[in-house]
Amino acid sequence: MLTFAQFGAGRIGAIHAANLAAAGNATLRYVVDVNTTAARALADQYGARVTNLGTALGDPEVDAVIIASSTDTHADLAIAAARAGKAIFCEKPIDLSLKRVDACIAAVKKARVPMFVGFNRRFDPSFAALHRRIGAGDIGAVEQVVVTSRDPGLPPLSYLKVSGGQFRDMTIHDFDMARWLLGEEPAEIFAYGSCLVDPAVAKVGDTDSVMIVMKTATGKLAHINNSRRAAYGYDQRIEVHGAKGRLLAGNQTPTTVELADANAVSADKPLHFFLERYAAAYRIELATFVDAVVNQRPLPVTVEDGRQAIVLAEAAAKSLRTGRSVKL
Amino acid sequence: MLTFAQFGAGRIGAIHAANLAAAGNATLRYVVDVNTTAARALADQYGARVTNLGTALGDPEVDAVIIASSTDTHADLAIAAARAGKAIFCEKPIDLSLKRVDACIAAVKKARVPMFVGFNRRFDPSFAALHRRIGAGDIGAVEQVVVTSRDPGLPPLSYLKVSGGQFRDMTIHDFDMARWLLGEEPAEIFAYGSCLVDPAVAKVGDTDSVMIVMKTATGKLAHINNSRRAAYGYDQRIEVHGAKGRLLAGNQTPTTVELADANAVSADKPLHFFLERYAAAYRIELATFVDAVVNQRPLPVTVEDGRQAIVLAEAAAKSLRTGRSVKL
Amino acid sequence: MLTFAQFGAGRIGAIHAANLAAAGNATLRYVVDVNTTAARALADQYGARVTNLGTALGDPEVDAVIIASSTDTHADLAIAAARAGKAIFCEKPIDLSLKRVDACIAAVKKARVPMFVGFNRRFDPSFAALHRRIGAGDIGAVEQVVVTSRDPGLPPLSYLKVSGGQFRDMTIHDFDMARWLLGEEPAEIFAYGSCLVDPAVAKVGDTDSVMIVMKTATGKLAHINNSRRAAYGYDQRIEVHGAKGRLLAGNQTPTTVELADANAVSADKPLHFFLERYAAAYRIELATFVDAVVNQRPLPVTVEDGRQAIVLAEAAAKSLRTGRSVKL
Amino acid sequence: MLTFAQFGAGRIGAIHAANLAAAGNATLRYVVDVNTTAARALADQYGARVTNLGTALGDPEVDAVIIASSTDTHADLAIAAARAGKAIFCEKPIDLSLKRVDACIAAVKKARVPMFVGFNRRFDPSFAALHRRIGAGDIGAVEQVVVTSRDPGLPPLSYLKVSGGQFRDMTIHDFDMARWLLGEEPAEIFAYGSCLVDPAVAKVGDTDSVMIVMKTATGKLAHINNSRRAAYGYDQRIEVHGAKGRLLAGNQTPTTVELADANAVSADKPLHFFLERYAAAYRIELATFVDAVVNQRPLPVTVEDGRQAIVLAEAAAKSLRTGRSVKL
Repeated sequence: MLTFAQFGAGRIGAIHAANLAAAGNATLRYVVDVNTTAARALADQYGARVTNLGTALGDPEVDAVIIASSTDTHADLAIAAARAGKAIFCEKPIDLSLKRVDACIAAVKKARVPMFVGFNRRFDPSFAALHRRIGAGDIGAVEQVVVTSRDPGLPPLSYLKVSGGQFRDMTIHDFDMARWLLGEEPAEIFAYGSCLVDPAVAKVGDTDSVMIVMKTATGKLAHINNSRRAAYGYDQRIEVHGAKGRLLAGNQTPTTVELADANAVSADKPLHFFLERYAAAYRIELATFVDAVVNQRPLPVTVEDGRQAIVLAEAAAKSLRTGRSVKL
Repeated sequence: MLTFAQFGAGRIGAIHAANLAAAGNATLRYVVDVNTTAARALADQYGARVTNLGTALGDPEVDAVIIASSTDTHADLAIAAARAGKAIFCEKPIDLSLKRVDACIAAVKKARVPMFVGFNRRFDPSFAALHRRIGAGDIGAVEQVVVTSRDPGLPPLSYLKVSGGQFRDMTIHDFDMARWLLGEEPAEIFAYGSCLVDPAVAKVGDTDSVMIVMKTATGKLAHINNSRRAAYGYDQRIEVHGAKGRLLAGNQTPTTVELADANAVSADKPLHFFLERYAAAYRIELATFVDAVVNQRPLPVTVEDGRQAIVLAEAAAKSLRTGRSVKL
Repeated sequence: MLTFAQFGAGRIGAIHAANLAAAGNATLRYVVDVNTTAARALADQYGARVTNLGTALGDPEVDAVIIASSTDTHADLAIAAARAGKAIFCEKPIDLSLKRVDACIAAVKKARVPMFVGFNRRFDPSFAALHRRIGAGDIGAVEQVVVTSRDPGLPPLSYLKVSGGQFRDMTIHDFDMARWLLGEEPAEIFAYGSCLVDPAVAKVGDTDSVMIVMKTATGKLAHINNSRRAAYGYDQRIEVHGAKGRLLAGNQTPTTVELADANAVSADKPLHFFLERYAAAYRIELATFVDAVVNQRPLPVTVEDGRQAIVLAEAAAKSLRTGRSVKL
Repeated sequence: MLTFAQFGAGRIGAIHAANLAAAGNATLRYVVDVNTTAARALADQYGARVTNLGTALGDPEVDAVIIASSTDTHADLAIAAARAGKAIFCEKPIDLSLKRVDACIAAVKKARVPMFVGFNRRFDPSFAALHRRIGAGDIGAVEQVVVTSRDPGLPPLSYLKVSGGQFRDMTIHDFDMARWLLGEEPAEIFAYGSCLVDPAVAKVGDTDSVMIVMKTATGKLAHINNSRRAAYGYDQRIEVHGAKGRLLAGNQTPTTVELADANAVSADKPLHFFLERYAAAYRIELATFVDAVVNQRPLPVTVEDGRQAIVLAEAAAKSLRTGRSVKL
């Protein structure tokens, strides 16, 4: 039984707390959030206590922490948790600044605690099957990866201003997917970006539509296309092309119902957004973390994975500014 | 908060107990099973107590019962629960004998307790969408229903011997689907049946492969095809044809992954069997029962639904014997 | 080079004439039709001459005839062609009366000429693949066949009056598909029928919606569902279930385009009707006939096949009247 | 009736000659090819004569030419045909050198003859539907285009040596699709390329695997991925993302048959290569050309389209060399 303190009682925090309760081998002791109403509500629902950072990390019976607070607090909380000897489950990104990411990694390594970065898509049953089947040789050597990742709608500009930009906030998951499925680090990256959804996005210095290409040292290629708005819902698909064939993972739908009428044959739109699409992924992700910590097994997603995604985001931003391929 | 006693701690009982625990507005107080080991395990997992029928029904704080024991006990337990004034959630079928079904219904009506029969497929998100969209007029007036329902593999002969026959044991769900989607009672039924999977099935007086057609008073038509063995898994599909179009609900798969290689383009087989395919249906079904009882709303599946499915099963068996259409 | 006379210059005649022209090893010498305008137009298009029955059959250079005239003339024309020693390609049905079918078969056998009945669906690439793959053992022994066959819209009542009824006119193709894919003759048949599309159909003594079940001597089962109206086009699908798996052949669409928008994910309706859906089948069918005659190989569809479909249609009609399974 | 001379009697020439014969309003008078055996065979099949360039272009009854000879002869033949006042149907590319393309265009403009460049994919029913439906507003303003275009297998190295490189030989079609569907010229282009299929390709100075991104002046984005080898056949898919939704055009298959067995649910591979996949496109393309010339309507594909694709291919090659975005 792993005892947890959780930082953050918002939307994603609620998911982790629910999954923790269902995991069977974990318990939530503390909830910490500056929004004490949210903290209280979550704590009450799962029989936990509301407390502050010091108490949570000072309690020797707390084995692990979930960091699901705002992005700018991730690194400090992870460093504090590392110093307190807690196992760390940290939402992505570790930080928007590579410098602070590195400081965090240093603290974690020094403390020799396990730290997991929340790349939940690796635990999506379909994307996980891509990875497993590549490993099983179903398509031979991987040659090209194509990631389609499109959100249902533009977040508020107030969010975009503090998001770190589309690459760090949105593409970061796709960078992780590309790296993971290529089985090799990108050695070069190039990006185009535009504001096609809303010109107001340009005013806060961001893009809403991007296309990226990457190349590894051995010449493997990857493409990512992103948009902040897909009128039909959350478009999350991946293709992997190899020497012997191709694997695709498509969207998921609420039902399998198909209507044929005088107009067309029509089926459900994809599940609306990440909470619906990645519900299973969040559950499996947390269970995997708990099992790894309990059984002292290596974590399947590491701080280096978290760091590398930020490196790619920074390089993509540089390519966007310079019109050149950026070497990594 | 609805307090439950549950009869039956087997495979289906375990599902109901888990869904009860997750429902949020229900609690399991007692587990009753002749297999005390199973009862103990289930009770321990959900903080319930193992007890006997008398104690469970005698406890005035018990509001409702779940009957998930062997089929031959359903009617007696339901009658006892009705007399004790408990709301009843009963697995299908109420009984294999129409006479006992009627006795049970009489007891329930006399006691004025709500009784729900576990036609879980009505709560499958895809089949439920069929029903909802028919009601919304998506395909105009319903004309024909085609139900494909095929199990992954033959159960043991020992099970078949006490199952009441393929119509009562397996087709019963499909009878309910057909009635529900036709929106009208079948007025006639005809059936062919064979032993194509295993000749041993004939020796216990049963079939393993059947095709049924039904007709309502206004001429609407329905077809059901069943097999006890589908090599590729659990094949559960429904088509509804109407004046303005057609609705289909297809199978569900573990992932959306598709492999294209030198041989073919291949995708996942359907989910293996009812526990996987109808996991959501079982959850929604129980939550619906709890909500209906708590809020004193009518139950969406009634004892009359349970009775009518048995009536159709008996008529199908008669048609099979006589080679004639049986009027209902 | 096979020289043809063709009887009938209507819609289906035009298709056969065009396919003959494209076949490469056949030529159309004569067109015979009571509608001389239609005959003239078709003859001009393909460099043929308009003539009468006597001249066409009297010409020793005519090797073969295509009978694509109205149904009531098929048998007489086939008998005359047989006596003249011509190879015969005859549209289905041979005749609506089994007695006249038998007279025709007798004449053909006596003349020892090859006679082919136009069950074009056997040459549809998808349905042909079902048959070939059953033969290759892809699904083991066949157990159940489900034929869905629904027309886009009701023909004029004037047509229905002379059509011989839905079983002889429409289901006849599905009877042939079922027999062909079962690999065994149906030994029993049962049918329900209704007028759901238009009550006027009942006034001419016909049905517009039918469901049929059949059983072979070894217990294999088949189901056919028909409607004279599918709002979304021509619905032509077949499922074959076997001991090791299932083969499906689905509808065909004009394009592969899929639209995802705020409402749904929608694709093309099926090809509208038989001229579009079975264009390839008609082409391959005629080429197969020509090749078989030229190379003196056995015909893949025989007069016995034509007869047996009529036998099933008559038995279905009898079952509809009597409410009983009809033995064959 | 349009009278044609055709240059080139190879694989693609055979297709055009067959489509001409079936068009109904065109006739093939001459075939010219240095391979006189091939010329003879083709001419015989369609009742044409084998001749030389001078005779073909000197015949005043020849209205139009089809240029389907080797790429290096396209420009010279087009210039000669233009001077002789013939309408020109020219296979892509006009030439591998932009300078010679421009000389050809100048000659055509001077002669005021219509010249069509064989971008057959614009006539593929599915891709044509994308274009038509974008125009109809089905997805609002276009934002991103993703072109997947992968050949079944590597051509011989001898071919690659004279092909002009992957961009000019293979991607050229995809450049045309991207321009056509974006509805706006790319203003910038970036490309990565590798030899992943066969290292021998690098030795002849070419790539076999490329990924390209492009951006228009208003910020619309396009991606193309190419491989010279897709183990499962010819992978030709296009996605267009717009403000209101997404259109996809998928692969086409020989049949709609689907097998479900103990391993998987599997369907046909895509049609093998361009002759199969684009059979309808070739037919419609030529008919469109003939109709436009006969009725003096503007051609739907122009020499400027042919030129612009070469411009993009040259810019992609430059980007590949320099690692920079190339402005157009």
